[in-house]
This record gives sequence, C-alpha cells and structure tokens, in this order.
Amino acid sequence: MIPFPKSEFDARIAKVKAAMQKAGVDVLLSTDTANINYLTGYDGWSFYTPQAVILALDAPEPIWTGRFMDSKGCEFTTYLKPENVRGYPDIYVQTPERHASSYMAEILKEKGWDKKRIGLEMDSFYFTPRAYEAFKASLPNATWVNADLLVAWVRIVKSPSEIKYMEQAAKICEKITRVAYEVVAPGVRECDAVAKISEAQISGTKEFGGDYSAFVPLVMPEPKSAAPHLTWTDEPFENNRGICLELSAARFHYHSVLARTMYLGKPKDELTKLADVCNDAILKTLDEIKPGLTCGEVHAVWNKLISKHGYSKESRIGYSLGVNYPPDWGEHTASLRPGDKTILQPNMTFHMITGMWMTGWGYEVSETFRITETGAKPLANMPKDLHVKT
Amino acid sequence: MIPFPKSEFDARIAKVKAAMQKAGVDVLLSTDTANINYLTGYDGWSFYTPQAVILALDAPEPIWTGRFMDSKGCEFTTYLKPENVRGYPDIYVQTPERHASSYMAEILKEKGWDKKRIGLEMDSFYFTPRAYEAFKASLPNATWVNADLLVAWVRIVKSPSEIKYMEQAAKICEKITRVAYEVVAPGVRECDAVAKISEAQISGTKEFGGDYSAFVPLVMPEPKSAAPHLTWTDEPFENNRGICLELSAARFHYHSVLARTMYLGKPKDELTKLADVCNDAILKTLDEIKPGLTCGEVHAVWNKLISKHGYSKESRIGYSLGVNYPPDWGEHTASLRPGDKTILQPNMTFHMITGMWMTGWGYEVSETFRITETGAKPLANMPKDLHVKT
Repeated sequence: MIPFPKSEFDARIAKVKAAMQKAGVDVLLSTDTANINYLTGYDGWSFYTPQAVILALDAPEPIWTGRFMDSKGCEFTTYLKPENVRGYPDIYVQTPERHASSYMAEILKEKGWDKKRIGLEMDSFYFTPRAYEAFKASLPNATWVNADLLVAWVRIVKSPSEIKYMEQAAKICEKITRVAYEVVAPGVRECDAVAKISEAQISGTKEFGGDYSAFVPLVMPEPKSAAPHLTWTDEPFENNRGICLELSAARFHYHSVLARTMYLGKPKDELTKLADVCNDAILKTLDEIKPGLTCGEVHAVWNKLISKHGYSKESRIGYSLGVNYPPDWGEHTASLRPGDKTILQPNMTFHMITGMWMTGWGYEVSETFRITETGAKPLANMPKDLHVKT
Repeated sequence: MIPFPKSEFDARIAKVKAAMQKAGVDVLLSTDTANINYLTGYDGWSFYTPQAVILALDAPEPIWTGRFMDSKGCEFTTYLKPENVRGYPDIYVQTPERHASSYMAEILKEKGWDKKRIGLEMDSFYFTPRAYEAFKASLPNATWVNADLLVAWVRIVKSPSEIKYMEQAAKICEKITRVAYEVVAPGVRECDAVAKISEAQISGTKEFGGDYSAFVPLVMPEPKSAAPHLTWTDEPFENNRGICLELSAARFHYHSVLARTMYLGKPKDELTKLADVCNDAILKTLDEIKPGLTCGEVHAVWNKLISKHGYSKESRIGYSLGVNYPPDWGEHTASLRPGDKTILQPNMTFHMITGMWMTGWGYEVSETFRITETGAKPLANMPKDLHVKT
C-alpha cells in the first residue's frame, strides 16, 4: 500500500535533515498531516487526534507517534520498524486531564533528546496551542525552534514519481470537469450534481482510482459565485446563470486542480469579455514562465495582461501544491503574488487560479502546471473556454 | 440559505454568554469551525485560513472575522449586520511576514476589549500556536482564559431543529448503508464502491440533499479492518473477507453515523459470535440508558455485557456529536468511557460505536441516538446484523 520505494523516503529524509541542520534543528517534531505522510508514508483519517513524526539528526529512521488504535495503520502504510511506531493509550484522547504531547515528550526524554534544539511547526493545521503548551511544560530543558514550513520547502520540488501521480490526478480532473459540464443543468439540484462529481473524483479512471481531495468540489452558481468557498445546497440550478467550478482530484493525496466556469443560457457580454481576458492571460503567462523567474515576476506578467483591460485582483493568483490532506491542498510556501522572491525551479508545481469576484457574479479559470527545464506545462488537457450550455 | 431562524441564534448566544460569565470570560475569540457556524450560521470551506467569531458580553451581536474574499460568504450564510463582518486583506494569507491574528487583535482594540478577560479555544482545530503567539503579542494587556469547549458544552443539548436535521441525516445514512451493501462485492475496486457511497451521501434523498461529512466514508476490508481509519485503495474486494463500514451523512453539517460490518462469503464462527455479542450489547445498553445516568455508567453497562463473553476494549465506546466540519464529527465533550461524569439529559446526541479490532480482522457496529425524556432512541432504523453476502 506504499506508493513509493524506500529509496524515495530515504532521499526525502536526507533533504529534510540537511534543512534541519541549516535551521539549527536537532529534532523535528512534525505535526503536519502532509509531512507525516511525506516522511513515513503514513496515511489514515486519524488527524483529528494528535499525531507527529519525530525526526532526529542522530537517528536513521523517524518515529511515528499517534493514537494506539491508529498505530496499526503503520503496518499497512509505512516502512517503519515496529520499534519506531509509538501509540498512546486512549486515556489521552479528548480529555482535559492529559494531553498526548506529554506522552510524545516522554519518547524524546527516553531517547535523550529533551535538551536538544527541537523544531515545531508553529502554524500547521491540527497543532494546537494546548499541544504546544503541553510540549513546553513537559520538556523544560529544550530549546524551541520554529520549524514551520521546513519540510514544505523541501516538498516544493517534486520527484518523477510525485509528478506522475499529479499527472494521473490531472487525468481524473479532466474526467470530473466533463462530468460537471454534463450534470449541471437547469432544474438539477446542486447536491445531485456535486454527488456525481464526487463519484467521478473517487472512482477515478479504469487505470487508477481517485483519492479524497483536500477540498470538497466547489460548484457555485450566481449570485453565490461572487463568494468563493461556499458549498452546495438543495437548490436547483437556474437558467441564465454562470456557475464557477473549482474541481480537484488526488492520487495518493497528490493533487491536481482545475477551475472552469460554465453558463446556462446565453452569457452576458461582460462575462464573455472577462473570460476572454482571463483565459488569454493564463495562456500568455504560462508561455512566459521559465525556471529562474521569481513568483513575484510571474504575478507581474499576469497583472500587466489583465490591467490593460481594466481589471485588477487583490489576492494572489496561485500557489505551490502537491501532497496534502484536508483542509488545503496548497503548500503554504511559494505564492504567485507581488514580492514573492521564490525562484522557479524545474519540477515545482503550481495551481494558477484566476478567480474574479464581481458584484453578484464571478469567473474562475485555472491550470495546475509544472515547471519544466525550459518553461511551464499544464498537467491537464482541458479547454479553458467558458462552457456555454443552452 | 440559513437553516435556522434568528431566534435560534439568539437563544444560542444567550446560553454561550451565560457560560462565559460563569467562566470569567468577557470576550470569546472562537476559532472552532463548528462554533463559528453555531454562533453565526457562517458556512464555507474557508477554514484553511484563520477565521474567528468575536463574542463580547457587552455586544448584542458577534463579529465574524476571516479572509476578505470569504467575508462575502457572510451575506449568504449569516444574519450578521455588515458592520460585524470584518475581512482581512490577502497580504495576511500564508506569509511569514504577518499573521491574521494581529488584524483580529486590532478589532478588539478598536472596541475597547483589549484589556478584558479574553477566552481562547486552546485545543480547537486550525487554531495554531503561531496564531496564539500573535494574539498574545498584539494584546499585551489582555488576561487570557482557556475557553476550550465552552461553546461545545452548550452545543451538547440539541434544539428540536437540530434534532430534525440529525434525523434527516440518519435517513440518508440508511440509504448509504443499503448502497454499500449493494456495491461492495468481490472484484469491485474499493474506490468504485466508495464513489457510489459518496454519491449517495451528497445526493441525499428526494426530500433533502446531503452535505459533506466530517469524515470520508470508511470501507475497510480484512486485513485492513484491524486498523481503523484507513481509507480506500484501488484494490478489488475479495471473497471470504469481512468489511467494516463506518458511514455518515450530514444535513447542514449535522451528522448521523452508522457503522456496520458485512461479509463476502461464509463468515467464520469467531466473527459471527463477536457480532452477536456486540449487537446484543448495543441493544441492551440502549435499553438501559435514561436521563440521569452518567456517561461512565453507560460504559459500565456495556462493559459488563461484553466482558462476560470474554471481550474487552480499551478505547471509549462513544461520544457526543452534532454540527461539525472535517476532520471530526465528535464534539470532544462527553465520552462514553470509564470515569466520565457527564449526566445524560434529554436531547443530547451520541454516537455509540463498538469497534473491536482483532488480529487481522475486526467488527464494527454503531448507532447514533438521542436521549429522550425516558430513554434513548436511535436516529436511524437499520438492522444491526452482520450483513452476509454470498
């Protein structure tokens, strides 16, 4: 059930250890769900109770620690030796009396790591202030280092296998988009359309099944399309409305995302004009991208293209993505926005998304792409046109 | 799009304010996704960026604060006056340069609440140590109070409308379970079965559509069923295997859950024996439950029933549930386990789940039930038998 050879994990750990040395971290306590998967392969819907990977510079293999009942999942999904799987008893689960951090701290003491420089991911989902305070109270002699995004900055350049899984996810994305174009129709309840999209997302293709994505499918008809991130209702789609689609697929938790917009009926001129500008801007920006540019420079290329048509957008237009778990597929490292100095390198992967939110309507279009040796290549092959359905 | 009348929100806020007074909290900074929904109606897949509800004893209405692009969602999903919706600009999003907590802190200063006793939910998902440290740095004159679970303890007793939505979710659960029994078969890929289950979960019934659940559907064939919380693969189901199903549905984010076990072929005697014991124990325990018992006493009833057959279980057998978002439908308040002194009251709702994990196989069965004036009533109507498919 582990989708990578042991050698790939060894290479990841070597890179993360190098980053730890540079950051002055002796022991990394990684609580981020994606990092736990990245470092050990561990994969289960168990991130609602505390879990972590403990990676020490002086230990060859990381230690997984989490709820005892979930430690059995390590047998199926990780390469770890049994002694490096440390499950805490259920008396630590969801109780004000004790926190799992204090169990985890005992492992560090046992290994003699309690006086070391310990890295914590200070802004990772599911790592709470209570867990943090319990670590500090249990390990009074440690020196704490903020190691937020340390692993994520290693994850930003993908291996050939990771790219392969993202390309497979892109194939599923193409299928899902076609399903959405087919099922979204006047009179159909939003929930019924999303149900079919979700089916396609999980079923995948005949060659490879789909995984759950870090977001649910977003299918947003006007006027709700003016607000991103609203989810479906029981209401039927109506004629003469635009619908923003933000659809994704995952393969072993590696994501591809495609946003598209469709229209039921004859679209207003202001929508088709905006669509043409956005589609053209994405196409031309992708043409300009090459290794060596910064993320900020990519944003500038795009901004110049849309501003000459009188449009502007305050929020960023994209971000790095890859392996992830709910609630976000983004890696929280590089963003395509002004001032971001990240230099593009081959096999970085981004989701460039133009979400233009107007009063009462919106237009979304996006591509997931990888940086090649010479440029940028979208992972999916799906026309960007506003999909008009009459 | 708001599934409750304003009067219901007013009643919730009155109860939460009473709890705040008791706990010595002047201003609650609620970061928990379910609490944000409970207090304002806000509903969007936006919890991957910081968001909070600020509820002050001396203010009639709470304030929603989150990313600016998501503030538009408040127009659709909340009753809040526009001045109580405060979106932060995108320069606060996923950057080491500044944190959204410092924007939120400015609101407290503006309102004159920065020297008050401020309650934080120290163990809520998506509230990170970095966000916590930024609050402390921005509001040096505040007195901090751990208000973890303060709102969740109010949520534990459900209103008639909340019960209605959980009953609707239970109807969807029944449908999903029948779909699972139908689609799980030898030779069918796990992903294809889960795809159909997910479709049923979101489509719901003709009367009411389904929402996304806080967990993905768990469909776990032997030997993986020995480890809870593992998700699906591309592998086909095989004959002569048990499959644990942990399936859920949500209606406006109010959950019902049903776990069942099925078997492809003729089950081993040890499985049918365990199934009989567990099913009987759930039935008899439900018969014994009535208001006034403690959660610990419920566990003792159940434990006595299974231990006389030589079984034991270390982990808790249930917990309070209701409105929630990924990654957990549980409320983290009352648990059915030894020592829990929570006294059962009418309209509390629980998920009682017997997950028995053996070596290489397992058995799961559960009911979501509500405490009535005199006893306990399962929300769904679905036979508990081991579902044998030959």
